[in-house]
Amino acid sequence: MDDILQLGQQALAAQPFSRLLHAQLTAFRRGQAELMVPITPDLLQQHGFVHGGVLSYAADNALTFAGGSVLGPAIVTSEYKINYLKPAHGERLIARATVVAAGARQAVCRCDVWTVTDAGEVLCATAQGTIVTLAEPSN
Amino acid sequence: MDDILQLGQQALAAQPFSRLLHAQLTAFRRGQAELMVPITPDLLQQHGFVHGGVLSYAADNALTFAGGSVLGPAIVTSEYKINYLKPAHGERLIARATVVAAGARQAVCRCDVWTVTDAGEVLCATAQGTIVTLAEPSN
Amino acid sequence: MDDILQLGQQALAAQPFSRLLHAQLTAFRRGQAELMVPITPDLLQQHGFVHGGVLSYAADNALTFAGGSVLGPAIVTSEYKINYLKPAHGERLIARATVVAAGARQAVCRCDVWTVTDAGEVLCATAQGTIVTLAEPSN
Amino acid sequence: MDDILQLGQQALAAQPFSRLLHAQLTAFRRGQAELMVPITPDLLQQHGFVHGGVLSYAADNALTFAGGSVLGPAIVTSEYKINYLKPAHGERLIARATVVAAGARQAVCRCDVWTVTDAGEVLCATAQGTIVTLAEPSN
Repeated sequence: MDDILQLGQQALAAQPFSRLLHAQLTAFRRGQAELMVPITPDLLQQHGFVHGGVLSYAADNALTFAGGSVLGPAIVTSEYKINYLKPAHGERLIARATVVAAGARQAVCRCDVWTVTDAGEVLCATAQGTIVTLAEPSN
Repeated sequence: MDDILQLGQQALAAQPFSRLLHAQLTAFRRGQAELMVPITPDLLQQHGFVHGGVLSYAADNALTFAGGSVLGPAIVTSEYKINYLKPAHGERLIARATVVAAGARQAVCRCDVWTVTDAGEVLCATAQGTIVTLAEPSN
Repeated sequence: MDDILQLGQQALAAQPFSRLLHAQLTAFRRGQAELMVPITPDLLQQHGFVHGGVLSYAADNALTFAGGSVLGPAIVTSEYKINYLKPAHGERLIARATVVAAGARQAVCRCDVWTVTDAGEVLCATAQGTIVTLAEPSN
Repeated sequence: MDDILQLGQQALAAQPFSRLLHAQLTAFRRGQAELMVPITPDLLQQHGFVHGGVLSYAADNALTFAGGSVLGPAIVTSEYKINYLKPAHGERLIARATVVAAGARQAVCRCDVWTVTDAGEVLCATAQGTIVTLAEPSN
């Protein structure tokens, strides 16, 4: 197992909210992160689809890990936007984030969120956001 | 209790993910919605602050209810963007959403997410998004 | 005239693209900026309304000035999102931006873009974005 | 020349603001649009780089054409967000937009804005937005 993947998995496991959602970091390399969330009954909304908040969580966290893969661990998500594309149902979500551009202080990343069903993967949301390094103490 | 508030609370209670997060609809009237999420250890990230995914959930859901207050219940959140402003900690989150402009098919809404601490309310995130009516079957 | 308003107007007048659009800074104080763009035939799209790119320009620039009012002149707009609300026509656009939250390195701002017609002001777009200080040379 | 490209070029030429900026539609096919804007002194800001408003115009318009390539001509841009990545200078901008997902009423699109310099193409902004069909008269 890659050292960087293992470090990322430890970081994810240190997030109580990610443990609550049983999220797993399934790929993590320079410029890319992939997060998996099993779809359980707890994660749904009133119509039986995955709650938008879960899609947002997956996108947000995958964006953060992608940014961290180039900026290091002392980062925070500054902002992102997400478009919901299709109602999400199936076995699990996969959020795949990539770095579009990175400098010393920030990385702009994209993330596609897929749902895995019997019929294959379906794109259910897409996001774009900014990950920034933590400000210096003097700031 | 207002009928519309009670209807909104029933809609929220029908969302398993909102029950998992113990979210409550604390105000709901034409053009406005307020959602409260108690901050519990399960909702944190690795540094002890509320996970961004929880702030996103609160903003997303408050935006949706605000949109629903003018568009009716057959709606879906199309998209939103969120800026994280401060690390969130305290007793509870309060997401306050308002309708900025509404037409027959969509409502554009804003949401501020506050955290309630001993020292008062602190603005920790702000969001803007679009709620749309569900397409007709022929679409 | 306020010194800060005069400084802002000089900064705007130093932008060739703002001169091309005849934009004027009509208010500028700590936390707020107001930009006016006269609606001329050159600024329209094919249906006779103001082109979205002009609304975006006005929102973008007003956001930047609002951020600059608290961060100083060495800034750049990092990102923003805009929702178009109504087709814009009339005499002039007014973009009013305010700072929602500011730290040492960034300001998150909102902007409403109005069109002024015979019947009064109509809200035609709303935006939210992030203004950041320029990175230190060492970055 | 493709019929669809010619139709798109006529639509662009019918926009006075696009003529003011000398924009050209350089590619247009189902799911994709490419817009070119020559960088002239009129389009700059005070530091000699292309004004953000021009990058926004290019992204906005390319997103709209991409959406129109699958939804038809009776459309409007509902919203988008843009991240500025690098100061833009050079000979011309190229905005390349693609459809990420489309339904009957909307298309979600992405756009990368490049600047062409002596040293090649440089990515200077990236955007994501929603194009929607015009509402029925009854709406």
